[in-house]
Amino acid sequence: MLNSVRSPSRVRMSPQERRRQLVGIGLRKFVERPVQDLSLDEVAAEAGVSRGLLFHYFPSKTEYHRAVVEAAWRRVGRNVAPDPDAVGSAAVRQVVERFLSQVERRRDTYVALVLGQAPIAPGLAVGGLREQLAALVLGAADLPAAAMPAAHGWVAYLEDRALQWSALPEGARQAEREALAEHCTRALTLLTDPAPAA
Amino acid sequence: MLNSVRSPSRVRMSPQERRRQLVGIGLRKFVERPVQDLSLDEVAAEAGVSRGLLFHYFPSKTEYHRAVVEAAWRRVGRNVAPDPDAVGSAAVRQVVERFLSQVERRRDTYVALVLGQAPIAPGLAVGGLREQLAALVLGAADLPAAAMPAAHGWVAYLEDRALQWSALPEGARQAEREALAEHCTRALTLLTDPAPAA
Repeated sequence: MLNSVRSPSRVRMSPQERRRQLVGIGLRKFVERPVQDLSLDEVAAEAGVSRGLLFHYFPSKTEYHRAVVEAAWRRVGRNVAPDPDAVGSAAVRQVVERFLSQVERRRDTYVALVLGQAPIAPGLAVGGLREQLAALVLGAADLPAAAMPAAHGWVAYLEDRALQWSALPEGARQAEREALAEHCTRALTLLTDPAPAA
Repeated sequence: MLNSVRSPSRVRMSPQERRRQLVGIGLRKFVERPVQDLSLDEVAAEAGVSRGLLFHYFPSKTEYHRAVVEAAWRRVGRNVAPDPDAVGSAAVRQVVERFLSQVERRRDTYVALVLGQAPIAPGLAVGGLREQLAALVLGAADLPAAAMPAAHGWVAYLEDRALQWSALPEGARQAEREALAEHCTRALTLLTDPAPAA
Protein backbone atom coordinates (compact mmCIF):
# COMPACT_ATOMS: atom_id res chain seq x y z
CA MET A 1 0.00 0.00 0.00
CA LEU A 2 2.69 2.47 1.03
CA ASN A 3 4.74 2.04 -2.09
CA SER A 4 1.74 2.75 -4.29
CA VAL A 5 2.25 6.39 -3.23
CA ARG A 6 5.41 6.43 -5.29
CA SER A 7 3.98 4.52 -8.27
CA PRO A 8 3.71 6.57 -11.47
CA SER A 9 -0.07 6.34 -11.44
CA ARG A 10 -0.19 8.37 -8.23
CA VAL A 11 1.59 11.26 -9.92
CA ARG A 12 -0.73 14.23 -10.25
CA MET A 13 -2.40 14.04 -13.64
CA SER A 14 -4.57 16.54 -15.45
CA PRO A 15 -8.22 15.41 -15.80
CA GLN A 16 -7.54 14.71 -19.47
CA GLU A 17 -4.48 12.58 -18.74
CA ARG A 18 -6.34 10.68 -16.03
CA ARG A 19 -9.24 10.00 -18.35
CA ARG A 20 -6.87 8.76 -21.02
CA GLN A 21 -5.11 6.50 -18.50
CA LEU A 22 -8.40 4.98 -17.34
CA VAL A 23 -9.61 4.40 -20.90
CA GLY A 24 -6.25 2.84 -21.77
CA ILE A 25 -6.67 0.31 -18.96
CA GLY A 26 -10.13 -0.53 -20.29
CA LEU A 27 -8.80 -1.05 -23.82
CA ARG A 28 -6.77 -3.96 -22.45
CA LYS A 29 -9.25 -5.25 -19.88
CA PHE A 30 -12.30 -5.51 -22.12
CA VAL A 31 -10.33 -7.51 -24.64
CA GLU A 32 -9.35 -10.04 -21.98
CA ARG A 33 -12.78 -10.43 -20.45
CA PRO A 34 -16.48 -9.83 -21.21
CA VAL A 35 -17.80 -6.59 -19.75
CA GLN A 36 -19.93 -8.35 -17.15
CA ASP A 37 -16.89 -10.10 -15.69
CA LEU A 38 -14.90 -6.92 -15.09
CA SER A 39 -15.30 -4.82 -11.93
CA LEU A 40 -14.58 -1.12 -11.78
CA ASP A 41 -12.73 -1.77 -8.51
CA GLU A 42 -10.17 -3.67 -10.55
CA VAL A 43 -9.73 -0.77 -12.94
CA ALA A 44 -9.41 1.71 -10.06
CA ALA A 45 -6.83 -0.50 -8.35
CA GLU A 46 -4.77 -0.80 -11.50
CA ALA A 47 -4.83 2.96 -12.04
CA GLY A 48 -3.91 3.48 -8.39
CA VAL A 49 -6.95 5.68 -7.78
CA SER A 50 -9.95 5.37 -5.49
CA ARG A 51 -13.25 3.95 -6.67
CA GLY A 52 -14.69 7.40 -5.94
CA LEU A 53 -12.34 9.12 -8.35
CA LEU A 54 -13.11 6.58 -11.07
CA PHE A 55 -16.83 7.24 -10.59
CA HIS A 56 -16.12 10.95 -10.83
CA TYR A 57 -15.02 10.36 -14.42
CA PHE A 58 -17.42 7.52 -15.28
CA PRO A 59 -20.61 7.39 -13.19
CA SER A 60 -21.44 3.80 -14.22
CA LYS A 61 -19.82 0.76 -15.73
CA THR A 62 -21.92 1.25 -18.85
CA GLU A 63 -20.54 4.77 -19.32
CA TYR A 64 -16.98 3.62 -18.74
CA HIS A 65 -17.45 0.78 -21.18
CA ARG A 66 -18.88 3.15 -23.78
CA ALA A 67 -15.92 5.54 -23.44
CA VAL A 68 -13.52 2.63 -23.98
CA VAL A 69 -15.40 1.38 -27.04
CA GLU A 70 -15.53 4.85 -28.58
CA ALA A 71 -11.80 5.23 -28.04
CA ALA A 72 -11.27 1.92 -29.88
CA TRP A 73 -13.43 3.16 -32.78
CA ARG A 74 -11.48 6.43 -33.04
CA ARG A 75 -8.20 4.58 -33.02
CA VAL A 76 -9.26 2.29 -35.88
CA GLY A 77 -10.58 5.31 -37.82
CA ARG A 78 -7.23 7.06 -37.54
CA ASN A 79 -5.25 3.95 -38.43
CA VAL A 80 -7.08 3.18 -41.68
CA ALA A 81 -7.49 6.71 -43.10
CA PRO A 82 -5.85 7.11 -46.53
CA ASP A 83 -3.03 9.57 -47.21
CA PRO A 84 -4.46 13.09 -47.53
CA ASP A 85 -3.38 13.35 -51.16
CA ALA A 86 -4.66 9.91 -52.28
CA VAL A 87 -7.77 9.86 -54.49
CA GLY A 88 -10.04 7.41 -56.33
CA SER A 89 -9.50 3.69 -56.18
CA ALA A 90 -5.91 4.19 -54.97
CA ALA A 91 -7.32 5.80 -51.80
CA VAL A 92 -9.89 3.01 -51.40
CA ARG A 93 -7.10 0.47 -51.81
CA GLN A 94 -5.12 2.18 -49.03
CA VAL A 95 -8.13 2.02 -46.71
CA VAL A 96 -8.59 -1.67 -47.52
CA GLU A 97 -4.92 -2.52 -46.95
CA ARG A 98 -4.72 -0.52 -43.72
CA PHE A 99 -7.92 -2.11 -42.51
CA LEU A 100 -6.56 -5.61 -43.19
CA SER A 101 -3.36 -4.72 -41.30
CA GLN A 102 -5.36 -3.26 -38.40
CA VAL A 103 -7.46 -6.40 -37.99
CA GLU A 104 -4.41 -8.63 -38.49
CA ARG A 105 -2.50 -6.77 -35.75
CA ARG A 106 -5.35 -6.38 -33.29
CA ARG A 107 -7.94 -9.00 -34.12
CA ASP A 108 -9.05 -9.55 -30.51
CA THR A 109 -9.48 -5.84 -29.92
CA TYR A 110 -11.52 -5.53 -33.08
CA VAL A 111 -13.81 -8.40 -32.16
CA ALA A 112 -14.25 -7.37 -28.53
CA LEU A 113 -14.36 -3.60 -28.82
CA VAL A 114 -15.62 -2.75 -32.27
CA LEU A 115 -17.71 -5.54 -33.71
CA GLY A 116 -19.41 -6.65 -30.54
CA GLN A 117 -20.56 -3.39 -29.07
CA ALA A 118 -23.88 -2.72 -30.74
CA PRO A 119 -25.87 -3.10 -27.50
CA ILE A 120 -24.08 -0.26 -25.76
CA ALA A 121 -24.94 2.15 -28.55
CA PRO A 122 -28.32 1.05 -29.93
CA GLY A 123 -28.63 4.14 -32.09
CA LEU A 124 -25.32 3.36 -33.67
CA ALA A 125 -25.07 -0.40 -33.98
CA VAL A 126 -21.35 -0.58 -34.78
CA GLY A 127 -22.43 2.29 -37.01
CA GLY A 128 -20.11 4.72 -35.34
CA LEU A 129 -17.15 3.16 -37.06
CA ARG A 130 -18.91 1.95 -40.21
CA GLU A 131 -20.35 5.39 -40.89
CA GLN A 132 -16.97 6.96 -40.39
CA LEU A 133 -15.23 4.57 -42.82
CA ALA A 134 -18.07 4.72 -45.36
CA ALA A 135 -17.86 8.53 -45.41
CA LEU A 136 -14.11 8.21 -45.87
CA VAL A 137 -14.30 5.99 -48.97
CA LEU A 138 -17.28 7.86 -50.37
CA GLY A 139 -15.22 11.03 -50.36
CA ALA A 140 -12.05 9.32 -51.57
CA ALA A 141 -13.76 7.52 -54.45
CA ASP A 142 -15.89 10.58 -55.28
CA LEU A 143 -19.13 8.61 -55.08
CA PRO A 144 -22.54 10.31 -54.83
CA ALA A 145 -24.31 10.59 -51.46
CA ALA A 146 -26.88 8.06 -52.71
CA ALA A 147 -24.15 5.41 -52.55
CA MET A 148 -23.86 5.82 -48.77
CA PRO A 149 -26.01 2.80 -47.78
CA ALA A 150 -24.04 0.52 -50.12
CA ALA A 151 -20.71 1.97 -48.94
CA HIS A 152 -21.81 1.37 -45.33
CA GLY A 153 -22.69 -2.23 -46.19
CA TRP A 154 -19.35 -2.57 -47.97
CA VAL A 155 -17.56 -1.70 -44.72
CA ALA A 156 -19.44 -4.59 -43.09
CA TYR A 157 -18.30 -6.84 -45.97
CA LEU A 158 -14.68 -5.69 -45.64
CA GLU A 159 -14.82 -6.19 -41.88
CA ASP A 160 -16.15 -9.73 -42.23
CA ARG A 161 -13.58 -10.67 -44.88
CA ALA A 162 -10.76 -9.18 -42.78
CA LEU A 163 -11.88 -11.14 -39.72
CA GLN A 164 -12.02 -14.42 -41.65
CA TRP A 165 -8.68 -13.75 -43.31
CA SER A 166 -6.89 -12.71 -40.14
CA ALA A 167 -7.78 -16.07 -38.58
CA LEU A 168 -5.80 -17.95 -41.26
CA PRO A 169 -2.30 -19.26 -40.54
CA GLU A 170 0.50 -16.80 -41.41
CA GLY A 171 1.46 -18.47 -44.70
CA ALA A 172 -2.04 -18.61 -46.14
CA ARG A 173 -2.68 -15.08 -44.92
CA GLN A 174 0.28 -13.64 -46.79
CA ALA A 175 -0.52 -15.65 -49.91
CA GLU A 176 -4.06 -14.26 -50.04
CA ARG A 177 -3.41 -10.71 -48.91
CA GLU A 178 -2.98 -9.15 -52.34
CA ALA A 179 -5.97 -10.82 -54.02
CA LEU A 180 -8.22 -10.04 -51.06
CA ALA A 181 -7.23 -6.35 -51.06
CA GLU A 182 -7.85 -6.23 -54.83
CA HIS A 183 -11.22 -7.99 -54.48
CA CYS A 184 -12.42 -5.77 -51.62
CA THR A 185 -11.38 -2.60 -53.45
CA ARG A 186 -13.31 -3.75 -56.51
CA ALA A 187 -16.29 -4.81 -54.38
CA LEU A 188 -16.94 -1.17 -53.51
CA THR A 189 -17.42 -0.38 -57.20
CA LEU A 190 -19.60 -3.45 -57.75
CA LEU A 191 -21.84 -2.73 -54.75
CA THR A 192 -22.23 1.01 -55.37
CA ASP A 193 -22.92 0.70 -59.11
CA PRO A 194 -26.53 1.96 -59.31
CA ALA A 195 -27.34 0.08 -62.54
CA PRO A 196 -27.96 -3.45 -61.21
CA ALA A 197 -30.15 -2.32 -58.34
CA ALA A 198 -32.24 0.21 -60.27
CA MET B 1 -44.85 -15.65 -1.34
CA LEU B 2 -47.63 -18.11 -0.67
CA ASN B 3 -49.47 -17.46 -3.89
CA SER B 4 -46.33 -18.05 -5.93
CA VAL B 5 -46.88 -21.70 -5.14
CA ARG B 6 -49.93 -21.59 -7.36
CA SER B 7 -48.38 -19.49 -10.12
CA PRO B 8 -47.97 -21.32 -13.46
CA SER B 9 -44.20 -21.07 -13.27
CA ARG B 10 -44.16 -23.25 -10.16
CA VAL B 11 -45.81 -26.05 -12.07
CA ARG B 12 -43.44 -29.00 -12.35
CA MET B 13 -41.55 -28.70 -15.62
CA SER B 14 -39.23 -31.13 -17.33
CA PRO B 15 -35.59 -29.95 -17.37
CA GLN B 16 -36.00 -29.16 -21.07
CA GLU B 17 -39.13 -27.07 -20.51
CA ARG B 18 -37.49 -25.23 -17.62
CA ARG B 19 -34.43 -24.48 -19.71
CA ARG B 20 -36.62 -23.18 -22.52
CA GLN B 21 -38.57 -21.00 -20.07
CA LEU B 22 -35.38 -19.48 -18.64
CA VAL B 23 -33.92 -18.83 -22.09
CA GLY B 24 -37.23 -17.24 -23.17
CA ILE B 25 -37.03 -14.78 -20.28
CA GLY B 26 -33.49 -13.89 -21.32
CA LEU B 27 -34.57 -13.31 -24.93
CA ARG B 28 -36.71 -10.43 -23.65
CA LYS B 29 -34.42 -9.18 -20.88
CA PHE B 30 -31.22 -8.87 -22.87
CA VAL B 31 -33.02 -6.81 -25.49
CA GLU B 32 -34.19 -4.36 -22.84
CA ARG B 33 -30.87 -4.01 -21.05
CA PRO B 34 -27.13 -4.56 -21.55
CA VAL B 35 -25.91 -7.82 -20.06
CA GLN B 36 -23.97 -6.12 -17.27
CA ASP B 37 -27.14 -4.42 -15.99
CA LEU B 38 -29.14 -7.63 -15.61
CA SER B 39 -28.96 -9.78 -12.50
CA LEU B 40 -29.67 -13.49 -12.50
CA ASP B 41 -31.76 -12.92 -9.36
CA GLU B 42 -34.17 -11.00 -11.52
CA VAL B 43 -34.41 -13.84 -14.01
CA ALA B 44 -34.92 -16.40 -11.22
CA ALA B 45 -37.64 -14.24 -9.65
CA GLU B 46 -39.47 -13.87 -12.95
CA ALA B 47 -39.33 -17.61 -13.56
CA GLY B 48 -40.50 -18.25 -10.01
CA VAL B 49 -37.51 -20.43 -9.24
CA SER B 50 -34.68 -20.15 -6.74
CA ARG B 51 -31.32 -18.71 -7.65
CA GLY B 52 -29.90 -22.14 -6.89
CA LEU B 53 -32.06 -23.82 -9.51
CA LEU B 54 -31.11 -21.21 -12.11
CA PHE B 55 -27.44 -21.87 -11.35
CA HIS B 56 -28.09 -25.57 -11.75
CA TYR B 57 -28.94 -24.91 -15.39
CA PHE B 58 -26.52 -22.04 -16.02
CA PRO B 59 -23.48 -21.95 -13.68
CA SER B 60 -22.60 -18.32 -14.56
CA LYS B 61 -24.16 -15.25 -16.11
CA THR B 62 -21.82 -15.66 -19.07
CA GLU B 63 -23.13 -19.17 -19.71
CA TYR B 64 -26.73 -18.06 -19.38
CA HIS B 65 -26.11 -15.16 -21.71
CA ARG B 66 -24.48 -17.46 -24.25
CA ALA B 67 -27.44 -19.86 -24.19
CA VAL B 68 -29.82 -16.96 -24.84
CA VAL B 69 -27.74 -15.62 -27.72
CA GLU B 70 -27.46 -19.06 -29.31
CA ALA B 71 -31.23 -19.46 -29.07
CA ALA B 72 -31.63 -16.11 -30.87
CA TRP B 73 -29.26 -17.29 -33.62
CA ARG B 74 -31.16 -20.56 -34.10
CA ARG B 75 -34.46 -18.70 -34.30
CA VAL B 76 -33.18 -16.35 -37.01
CA GLY B 77 -31.71 -19.31 -38.91
CA ARG B 78 -35.07 -21.09 -38.93
CA ASN B 79 -36.97 -17.95 -39.90
CA VAL B 80 -34.91 -17.10 -42.97
CA ALA B 81 -34.39 -20.60 -44.43
CA PRO B 82 -35.75 -20.93 -47.99
CA ASP B 83 -38.49 -23.36 -48.96
CA PRO B 84 -37.03 -26.89 -49.24
CA ASP B 85 -37.82 -27.05 -52.96
CA ALA B 86 -36.47 -23.60 -53.88
CA VAL B 87 -33.20 -23.48 -55.85
CA GLY B 88 -30.80 -20.99 -57.43
CA SER B 89 -31.37 -17.27 -57.26
CA ALA B 90 -35.03 -17.80 -56.34
CA ALA B 91 -33.88 -19.48 -53.13
CA VAL B 92 -31.35 -16.72 -52.46
CA ARG B 93 -34.11 -14.17 -53.02
CA GLN B 94 -36.30 -15.95 -50.45
CA VAL B 95 -33.49 -15.84 -47.89
CA VAL B 96 -32.96 -12.13 -48.58
CA GLU B 97 -36.67 -11.29 -48.28
CA ARG B 98 -37.11 -13.35 -45.14
CA PHE B 99 -34.03 -11.80 -43.64
CA LEU B 100 -35.33 -8.29 -44.34
CA SER B 101 -38.66 -9.22 -42.71
CA GLN B 102 -36.90 -10.74 -39.73
CA VAL B 103 -34.83 -7.61 -39.06
CA GLU B 104 -37.85 -5.37 -39.75
CA ARG B 105 -39.95 -7.29 -37.21
CA ARG B 106 -37.29 -7.73 -34.55
CA ARG B 107 -34.65 -5.09 -35.10
CA ASP B 108 -33.85 -4.63 -31.41
CA THR B 109 -33.45 -8.36 -30.87
CA TYR B 110 -31.18 -8.58 -33.87
CA VAL B 111 -28.97 -5.73 -32.71
CA ALA B 112 -28.81 -6.85 -29.09
CA LEU B 113 -28.67 -10.62 -29.45
CA VAL B 114 -27.14 -11.36 -32.83
CA LEU B 115 -24.95 -8.53 -34.01
CA GLY B 116 -23.53 -7.48 -30.69
CA GLN B 117 -22.48 -10.78 -29.23
CA ALA B 118 -19.05 -11.39 -30.65
CA PRO B 119 -17.32 -11.09 -27.26
CA ILE B 120 -19.20 -14.01 -25.75
CA ALA B 121 -18.11 -16.31 -28.54
CA PRO B 122 -14.66 -15.17 -29.63
CA GLY B 123 -14.14 -18.18 -31.86
CA LEU B 124 -17.35 -17.38 -33.66
CA ALA B 125 -17.62 -13.59 -33.88
CA VAL B 126 -21.27 -13.43 -34.94
CA GLY B 127 -20.00 -16.25 -37.12
CA GLY B 128 -22.42 -18.75 -35.69
CA LEU B 129 -25.24 -17.17 -37.62
CA ARG B 130 -23.24 -15.89 -40.59
CA GLU B 131 -21.74 -19.32 -41.20
CA GLN B 132 -25.16 -20.90 -41.02
CA LEU B 133 -26.70 -18.47 -43.53
CA ALA B 134 -23.68 -18.55 -45.83
CA ALA B 135 -23.86 -22.35 -45.99
CA LEU B 136 -27.58 -22.02 -46.73
CA VAL B 137 -27.15 -19.74 -49.77
CA LEU B 138 -24.06 -21.58 -50.96
CA GLY B 139 -26.12 -24.73 -51.18
CA ALA B 140 -29.18 -23.00 -52.61
CA ALA B 141 -27.23 -21.14 -55.31
CA ASP B 142 -25.06 -24.19 -56.03
CA LEU B 143 -21.84 -22.22 -55.54
CA PRO B 144 -18.45 -23.93 -55.07
CA ALA B 145 -16.95 -24.29 -51.58
CA ALA B 146 -14.30 -21.73 -52.58
CA ALA B 147 -17.04 -19.09 -52.56
CA MET B 148 -17.63 -19.58 -48.83
CA PRO B 149 -15.57 -16.59 -47.60
CA ALA B 150 -17.36 -14.25 -50.02
CA ALA B 151 -20.77 -15.72 -49.14
CA HIS B 152 -19.95 -15.21 -45.46
CA GLY B 153 -19.02 -11.59 -46.16
CA TRP B 154 -22.20 -11.21 -48.19
CA VAL B 155 -24.25 -12.15 -45.10
CA ALA B 156 -22.49 -9.30 -43.26
CA TYR B 157 -23.42 -7.00 -46.16
CA LEU B 158 -27.05 -8.15 -46.16
CA GLU B 159 -27.20 -7.72 -42.39
CA ASP B 160 -25.85 -4.19 -42.54
CA ARG B 161 -28.21 -3.18 -45.36
CA ALA B 162 -31.18 -4.72 -43.53
CA LEU B 163 -30.32 -2.83 -40.34
CA GLN B 164 -30.02 0.49 -42.17
CA TRP B 165 -33.22 -0.14 -44.12
CA SER B 166 -35.26 -1.24 -41.10
CA ALA B 167 -34.49 2.08 -39.40
CA LEU B 168 -36.25 4.01 -42.20
CA PRO B 169 -39.79 5.31 -41.71
CA GLU B 170 -42.51 2.88 -42.86
CA GLY B 171 -43.23 4.65 -46.19
CA ALA B 172 -39.61 4.81 -47.33
CA ARG B 173 -39.09 1.25 -46.15
CA GLN B 174 -41.89 -0.15 -48.27
CA ALA B 175 -40.84 1.95 -51.28
CA GLU B 176 -37.30 0.54 -51.16
CA ARG B 177 -38.02 -3.05 -50.17
CA GLU B 178 -38.19 -4.53 -53.67
CA ALA B 179 -35.09 -2.80 -55.06
CA LEU B 180 -33.08 -3.67 -51.96
CA ALA B 181 -34.05 -7.35 -52.13
CA GLU B 182 -33.13 -7.39 -55.82
CA HIS B 183 -29.82 -5.64 -55.17
CA CYS B 184 -28.84 -7.93 -52.29
CA THR B 185 -29.73 -11.06 -54.27
CA ARG B 186 -27.56 -9.82 -57.13
CA ALA B 187 -24.77 -8.82 -54.75
CA LEU B 188 -24.17 -12.49 -53.92
CA THR B 189 -23.41 -13.18 -57.58
CA LEU B 190 -21.18 -10.10 -57.87
CA LEU B 191 -19.20 -10.90 -54.75
CA THR B 192 -18.76 -14.61 -55.42
CA ASP B 193 -17.77 -14.22 -59.07
CA PRO B 194 -14.17 -15.45 -59.04
CA ALA B 195 -13.09 -13.52 -62.14
CA PRO B 196 -12.58 -10.02 -60.72
CA ALA B 197 -10.66 -11.21 -57.69
CA ALA B 198 -8.39 -13.68 -59.49
